[in-house]
Amino acid sequence: MSVTSFASGPATFPPPVLEALQHDISMWRSSGQSVLELPFTSRDFSEILDEAELALRSLLAIPASHRVLFLQGGAFTHFSLLPMNLAGQSGRADYIETGLWSRRAIAEASPWVDVRLAANGDGRSLPDPRSWRMDPTSAYCHYTSNETADGLQFHALPGAGPVPLVADMSADLLTRPLPVERFGLIYASGQKNLGAAGLTIIIVREDLLGKVRPGTPAPLDYTRQAKEACKVNTPPTFAVAVALRMLRWLIDAGGVGGAEERSLRKSAKLYAALDTDAFYSTPIAPAHRSRVNIRFHLPTPALEDAFISEAAANGLLYLGGHPSIGGVRANLYNGVPEASVDVLVAFMNDFRRRKG
Amino acid sequence: MSVTSFASGPATFPPPVLEALQHDISMWRSSGQSVLELPFTSRDFSEILDEAELALRSLLAIPASHRVLFLQGGAFTHFSLLPMNLAGQSGRADYIETGLWSRRAIAEASPWVDVRLAANGDGRSLPDPRSWRMDPTSAYCHYTSNETADGLQFHALPGAGPVPLVADMSADLLTRPLPVERFGLIYASGQKNLGAAGLTIIIVREDLLGKVRPGTPAPLDYTRQAKEACKVNTPPTFAVAVALRMLRWLIDAGGVGGAEERSLRKSAKLYAALDTDAFYSTPIAPAHRSRVNIRFHLPTPALEDAFISEAAANGLLYLGGHPSIGGVRANLYNGVPEASVDVLVAFMNDFRRRKG
Repeated sequence: MSVTSFASGPATFPPPVLEALQHDISMWRSSGQSVLELPFTSRDFSEILDEAELALRSLLAIPASHRVLFLQGGAFTHFSLLPMNLAGQSGRADYIETGLWSRRAIAEASPWVDVRLAANGDGRSLPDPRSWRMDPTSAYCHYTSNETADGLQFHALPGAGPVPLVADMSADLLTRPLPVERFGLIYASGQKNLGAAGLTIIIVREDLLGKVRPGTPAPLDYTRQAKEACKVNTPPTFAVAVALRMLRWLIDAGGVGGAEERSLRKSAKLYAALDTDAFYSTPIAPAHRSRVNIRFHLPTPALEDAFISEAAANGLLYLGGHPSIGGVRANLYNGVPEASVDVLVAFMNDFRRRKG
Repeated sequence: MSVTSFASGPATFPPPVLEALQHDISMWRSSGQSVLELPFTSRDFSEILDEAELALRSLLAIPASHRVLFLQGGAFTHFSLLPMNLAGQSGRADYIETGLWSRRAIAEASPWVDVRLAANGDGRSLPDPRSWRMDPTSAYCHYTSNETADGLQFHALPGAGPVPLVADMSADLLTRPLPVERFGLIYASGQKNLGAAGLTIIIVREDLLGKVRPGTPAPLDYTRQAKEACKVNTPPTFAVAVALRMLRWLIDAGGVGGAEERSLRKSAKLYAALDTDAFYSTPIAPAHRSRVNIRFHLPTPALEDAFISEAAANGLLYLGGHPSIGGVRANLYNGVPEASVDVLVAFMNDFRRRKG
């Protein structure tokens, strides 16, 4: 039986990327070695890093003012270390609280920076960026562009202001075009739209470097990593090679414009199925629904359990909601094919006919 | 041309492990998914974690008193965070300074803990563990069991005392039997004897947990990771699957007893070639020579450069010494076959005949 994973991460891969990676594990180009065996100080791995950076720069039109870092760790590690990197010894920072992941970022930052809440959501909708009340003395303003657990996504992006914008885009980086120039720092972990867990991509405006707090662990010190071309410590070499394959696949598939079209079509089909009647429902206000994490509910928890297990029996895997929230969640990252969304929609309609 | 990498990491893989990984990337067991696609919360990935832990426990006879953690990051990240984990808010710790990596561990620990030097080496030999002068009030005593850059290795292991022993075994874990029960905490990064970069294995005595300093990033908080079965954040799922394949291969190849025999034979052949006459030389005292990182010199830097590039042209790759030390270095991790060491020794003898 053919299966599709709708998990929140690690996520589904495009088949051509998996085929290419099988080959890379056997032999990386003409190196005579597996991609897993390339020393991080080798010319081969430097090419992988450089090509991955170039591909990312071309996909997102990253301006020369911004550096790109490929580092170990996931978003959780990086939002924990952000304050040490950007706020120095005793800074303050604005945070936008909108759901589970922004709350975790706030909890991790609190021991290291004076956290100010500049805006907050209500769990069903997001605060309009024009209403955020930032403190001009804050080192940065952090927000989560997409709340994967809650199913919320900012569609209106904040404008650039005096306070540098910092965004966790783990779930939606590379799913749509992005005005990178407005941001001070963007970070995203690998296991959603970039392939493997254990890698985080950092895009940081160069003038924000140099403010690191003494004692920041060197492998997570963005200033030092930028100076030493991401080789302060051993980078997650294979995860970078996977990201390169994913980025090349995305370029071949029409870039972030193509990704946005597919993301719009896939999510529109799923929301249309939800909105048919009251059997499926989502608490999220239409203007703030995530295109990548579609969260919904059925009339009873028992029906939700039956839905999730029958779907799995039909090859539609990992549709359970985040453990802290429950319900159902379909995660539609770049690697999830539109045809699988069609199968899921057909299953949803059939399940409603039988149980509704 | 067939090639062998003698790099310090990522290191050479056994061919059967690479073949198995190609298959795993195509399909993990009967999951219908690539190993790269398994959600970290799935039963499939829990099996991988559990089986990897069991394999490691059986290889090293890890007692029930010790927990095993598979976490993101490398040794550099972990020796940076160790003091926050083990020394609480304002502790002190003993360190043994023996070379480049122990000095880095000391530099990273210093902002977080009152570092006491309990012993130090002279760059050519190591301080006898019976001579270490630990402070009984120290939270732990940290040493580096093998200095990869310098080419030093402890062959006499310290006894257990009132101060918990903490060891960075990134280079030599799984190359020989080990009395784990003597240690408070052992850590090792993945890219030498465990496969992929981006993973660190922690073996920690349970009673050392619970002393974590508030503000320690949750993904690097050993107490919390032990409570939540290494799933506080997304583990480096593929790197864990690679480690499982490496551990199984090692079990099939005679366990750590077999690894030690091969390590002894491979390193003895190389040191015999060095000790033939004065053309090749090593500053390391015979009793403290590393079996995994064999560092040596030729009469002039020009001859060293010629040696390294001619060797590479013959498929013997990455024989340059650590950039801060220079010279030549052959890293003989578990994946480097004895036959490749024979080829290297033949090349050394031929090079000496031609240039000596």
